[in-house]
Amino acid sequence: MAHRGARATIADVAREAGVSKGTVSMALTGRGRVAAGTREKVLEVAQRLDWVPSARARSLSTDRADALGLVLAREPEHLGADPFFAPFIAGVEAALSPRGQALVLHVVTTPAEEREAYRRLAAGRVDGALLTDLRVDDERPALLADLGLTALAVGHQRSTTSSAPLPQVALDDRAGVRSAVDHLVALGHRRLAHVTGSQQLVHGVDRLEAFRDAVAAHGDALDTPTVLDGDFSAASGAAAAHRWLAARAALGAAGAPTALVVANDLMATAALGVLAAAGVRVPQEVSVTGFDDAPLAAHLSPPLTTVRSDAAAWGRAAADALLDLLEDDDGRRAAGDRPGSPDLPAARLVVRGSTGAPPT
Amino acid sequence: MAHRGARATIADVAREAGVSKGTVSMALTGRGRVAAGTREKVLEVAQRLDWVPSARARSLSTDRADALGLVLAREPEHLGADPFFAPFIAGVEAALSPRGQALVLHVVTTPAEEREAYRRLAAGRVDGALLTDLRVDDERPALLADLGLTALAVGHQRSTTSSAPLPQVALDDRAGVRSAVDHLVALGHRRLAHVTGSQQLVHGVDRLEAFRDAVAAHGDALDTPTVLDGDFSAASGAAAAHRWLAARAALGAAGAPTALVVANDLMATAALGVLAAAGVRVPQEVSVTGFDDAPLAAHLSPPLTTVRSDAAAWGRAAADALLDLLEDDDGRRAAGDRPGSPDLPAARLVVRGSTGAPPT
Repeated sequence: MAHRGARATIADVAREAGVSKGTVSMALTGRGRVAAGTREKVLEVAQRLDWVPSARARSLSTDRADALGLVLAREPEHLGADPFFAPFIAGVEAALSPRGQALVLHVVTTPAEEREAYRRLAAGRVDGALLTDLRVDDERPALLADLGLTALAVGHQRSTTSSAPLPQVALDDRAGVRSAVDHLVALGHRRLAHVTGSQQLVHGVDRLEAFRDAVAAHGDALDTPTVLDGDFSAASGAAAAHRWLAARAALGAAGAPTALVVANDLMATAALGVLAAAGVRVPQEVSVTGFDDAPLAAHLSPPLTTVRSDAAAWGRAAADALLDLLEDDDGRRAAGDRPGSPDLPAARLVVRGSTGAPPT
Repeated sequence: MAHRGARATIADVAREAGVSKGTVSMALTGRGRVAAGTREKVLEVAQRLDWVPSARARSLSTDRADALGLVLAREPEHLGADPFFAPFIAGVEAALSPRGQALVLHVVTTPAEEREAYRRLAAGRVDGALLTDLRVDDERPALLADLGLTALAVGHQRSTTSSAPLPQVALDDRAGVRSAVDHLVALGHRRLAHVTGSQQLVHGVDRLEAFRDAVAAHGDALDTPTVLDGDFSAASGAAAAHRWLAARAALGAAGAPTALVVANDLMATAALGVLAAAGVRVPQEVSVTGFDDAPLAAHLSPPLTTVRSDAAAWGRAAADALLDLLEDDDGRRAAGDRPGSPDLPAARLVVRGSTGAPPT
C-alpha cells in the first residue's frame, strides 16, 4: 500500500522545474505573471511527478485555508498533566468557531518533528500559527519567517537572536509570583526558596525573575533566597523536596527555608507527596505554593495555595488577534508592528491550606 | 468588519439555485454531469451571493482534505484534568504525520456547538472523524451518517438506537477494574464500594459493570457491594468520600466498605483529599484505587494504586484504522463491515501505596 506521504510535493516540482514554489502555484492557478514557457515546464514536471496540488495550491483560489495552526512540542505525559493546554485550546476555539475557522493541531516530541509540522502548516494547511511555550532564544520565529507563515506569540518574547519578534499577546503571570511572595512575607516568612521551572522556557525564566524581584523588593527584611532547580516535571518537584529535607537535616529548622514557591502545580504536588511521606506537616513545618491552579489543586491535602491565570481568555485573545492580523492586511503587516495586547487579567494568587505562619 | 462566518455557503447557493449541494460542486468543478442550463444557473447564483468555494469544493479536485477531525465535547476544566486526552492526541499524531495527514480539533461545550463542529468538518475540512467519549445511545453516528462523514469509534459502542454502529477500535479497560477488585480481595477486603463515572458515558457504564461482574465472580466470599454515584469530576469524588465518612460514622468500621474502587484518578485524588482532611489514614483505614494513572498519581500521598491504559497506542491504532478505511475504499465501506481491532494491550493495574489490608 503506497503511503500518501510518498507523494511528490510542490517543493519537488519546483526543484525539478528550476523555479520557486510561488511560480509553481502561479503556473497552476493562472494567478500572477508566469512566462508561457515556464508554465509549460511546470505543468510537464507536475504531470511527470504525478503531483497532486496540495491544499495550499487549492486554497490559492481564495488565498485562505480558514484555519490556524498550533504545534505543541512536549512529551505527551507532560501535556497530560498540563492544566494550561485544554482551557487555552477551548479559548482558541471560542474565537475561531464564530469566524468559521478551524484549528489544526500537531503534537511533536523532537525538533525535527517540530520543523516538519511547521513546514506542513506553511504548505497551505493554515493561514497562520500560534506560538506557545515560548523559549529563550526561540528559533521558531526565524523558521516561520523562512516559511512565510504569519504567526503570533502567546506570551512575551525574550531572545538575543537577530530575528524580528512576532506580534504577541501576553498575560502577566509575574504578578502571581509576586503575590505569592508577598503573601508568605505577610505570614511572617523570612527564608524563601523557589523551585524553578525549565530555564529553556520563557515562563520558567520569568517566574524565577519575578521571585527574585519580589524578594528584593522586601530588602533586608528577608534572608538571601534559595533557588532549587526544577524543570516543571513531577520528578523534579519531588527531587527539590528531597533537597529541602536534606537542608533541614543539615541546617535545622532554624536554617532551612520555611516556604517553597514552586513554579507549577505538578512540581508542587509531587513535593507535597514527598513531604507527607517524610512526615513533614504542611503548612506547620513548611509552606508550599504552586502555579496554575490545576483542577486537582483544590483537592490536595492540604489544598494547594497557587496562582491562577485565565488560559481560556488568553487563548481567545490570541486567536482573535491573529485572525485580525490576517484579516486586516492579509498577513503582510510588518512583524514589528504589533497589535496591542488586549486587557487580559494578570495571574492572581488563590490562597488555600498549604500556606501558613512559619514554624517558631 | 465583516466576519468571515457571514459568507454564503454552498447550501445557500444550492437553495437559491434549487439544486443539490452535489450539483453545485459538480457545476463548479466540472466533474460529473450537469446540464448546461443548470450550470449557468449555479454560477449566476454563486456570483450573486458572492460565494467563495469552500475547502470542500476546492478539495473535490483531489477528493481529499488529507486531514482527520476530532470533536471533544467537554468542559475545559475537565479536559485539563484528563490524562487520556494528551497521549491519545500524540498517538493520533504519530499515525497521521508519516502519512501526510493533519488533525483538525474542535473543543465544544454544548450539543449545538457539537453539531455545528461536525457540520463544518463534514463540509470538507476532513476526510473522516474519530469519535471518542462514546455515549450510551450516542446520537453522533446517525448525525455523521446524515452528514456523509466517514467515522471510527474509539471504544466499543453500546446503543439501543437504530443507527448502524461505526467501525471501532476498542481497548479493554474492564480488565483493569477486574484486576483492582481481585487485588483488594487478595488483600482481604470483603466489603467493596465503587465510585462511578458518568453513566451517560460508555466507559462510565463499563467500569460499573466490570466492578459488579468482578465482585459477582467472587460469589459469597464478598458482601453486597456499595455503589456511590459519581460523574468523573473532582467534586463528585469528594462527595463520595463524604458519603463514605457518613456511612462509617453510622455503621462503624465493621459495617462500612473497606475499599473504594474509583472510576478515575481525578475523583480518587479528591477522595484522598477529603479522607486526609478527616484524619482517615489510607490504606490503614480504607483502601482507594483509581483509573487512568494520571501523571500525579504516583506522587500523591499515599501514591495511588490505579489502572493504566495505553492511550497513545490507542490513538495511533484508531487513526491508522480510520486512514486505512478511507484509503481502502474511499470511505464507502459498509459501516457494519468493521476492520479488526488491532492488538491493544488491555488496561492493567499499577499497585502503589493507597491499597493495603483492611482494618481488623
